[in-house]
Amino acid sequence: MEKGQLLYEGKAKRLYATDEQDILWVEYKDSATAFNGEKKAEITGKGMLNNKITSLIFERLQKAGIASHFVKQLSDHEQLVRQVSIIPVEVVTRNIVAGSMAKRLGLEEGTVLKRPIVEFYYKDDALGDPIITEDHIEMLELASTEEIRELRVKALEVNEVLIGFFKEVGVDIVDFKIEFGRDNDGQILLADEISPDTCRLWDAKTKQKLDKDVFRRNLGNLTEAYELILAKLGGQHS
Amino acid sequence: MEKGQLLYEGKAKRLYATDEQDILWVEYKDSATAFNGEKKAEITGKGMLNNKITSLIFERLQKAGIASHFVKQLSDHEQLVRQVSIIPVEVVTRNIVAGSMAKRLGLEEGTVLKRPIVEFYYKDDALGDPIITEDHIEMLELASTEEIRELRVKALEVNEVLIGFFKEVGVDIVDFKIEFGRDNDGQILLADEISPDTCRLWDAKTKQKLDKDVFRRNLGNLTEAYELILAKLGGQHS
Repeated sequence: MEKGQLLYEGKAKRLYATDEQDILWVEYKDSATAFNGEKKAEITGKGMLNNKITSLIFERLQKAGIASHFVKQLSDHEQLVRQVSIIPVEVVTRNIVAGSMAKRLGLEEGTVLKRPIVEFYYKDDALGDPIITEDHIEMLELASTEEIRELRVKALEVNEVLIGFFKEVGVDIVDFKIEFGRDNDGQILLADEISPDTCRLWDAKTKQKLDKDVFRRNLGNLTEAYELILAKLGGQHS
Repeated sequence: MEKGQLLYEGKAKRLYATDEQDILWVEYKDSATAFNGEKKAEITGKGMLNNKITSLIFERLQKAGIASHFVKQLSDHEQLVRQVSIIPVEVVTRNIVAGSMAKRLGLEEGTVLKRPIVEFYYKDDALGDPIITEDHIEMLELASTEEIRELRVKALEVNEVLIGFFKEVGVDIVDFKIEFGRDNDGQILLADEISPDTCRLWDAKTKQKLDKDVFRRNLGNLTEAYELILAKLGGQHS
């Protein structure tokens, strides 16, 4: 497999073509951004950690029968994925109140929800990724009614697997953001990444934050937290 | 019927007890507020206009079979209503893109929607009345799943009646906010007011704004716009 031309550079990743059709080469960057890009930093090791953690999680999800774009990890910073057309909807699943939900609805961070809540956000940096309803998704023609139902079901399935995966290692998954894409046949695949950049992960006992909130809220050393997550999940840190 | 003690004073109305159980005496104030109370003014005549317009609209809705708290208009500024426990959810129905929807979703004001959109907002001044999903309404225990369905159906029914009512007089109803309450039997009744304070009303030909946006956006004389709506609906301005 050969790495081809750069197709896209986002805040956290670069996407390259390969010599195989529909397969992309992903390179994880060491950039950290928060608050819609307003807070930025370069953090050595972060790209490697997210690449490794995402690879472990996507492998686990595939074993549980959840189809995704993930093909395989190539190196510390790189992985191969199937090319999909990303649906511009961020799907957020919440088990415990934190972050924007606490602020928006006036709820106490840490409140355990009776059942998981799925929220949709319109993936649009210029608009600040606003929360949207299913009616808005249809109106904006981002996805069909059937697809919206599928996104919700898949998000809850991913949640069940992640809850179990993290529970085994003493970590609560508070909430997480996932993205989906359509492949050439129109099949919906889980895509993007699942890492401490896109999840809130709290130590189940101490409630210590082991995710991007360490960066957002200046709570200490980000790579130490991410290394801890990688080690807990059984990954090797080179 | 006698007016009793003051029970509640809001931004636009005062509610009094009466000597009849479950019947309240409503007094419309001349205050105008916008942007969650940040912009304020006293506008002589506004209370009377909203009282008269709301009375005309609620009568029309009752003729169309839509149950509400409205009993009867008492005077220029006053009406009688059935006492209900207000559900703290603002139900917004939109036919044409305007206001916060245009801003939030990056859409052009004036775009006609393919079908009406119903949105829910959490009625909480301190939080700035955030938009919420059906999941949030259940989670916050503001209404049950069945009640949420009922709110949506009723909002669309009210919309159909209002579209017809205003179309007859050359006005487009762009969007409107309604509130509902539960009576003693738990029955859901349309409540609060429906007036140019709670609707966006545009002259169908000239697109002139005949609603609170005149105040929000400093577009001219508010009472003239409200008087025009009252006259169009066949009401008398004393």
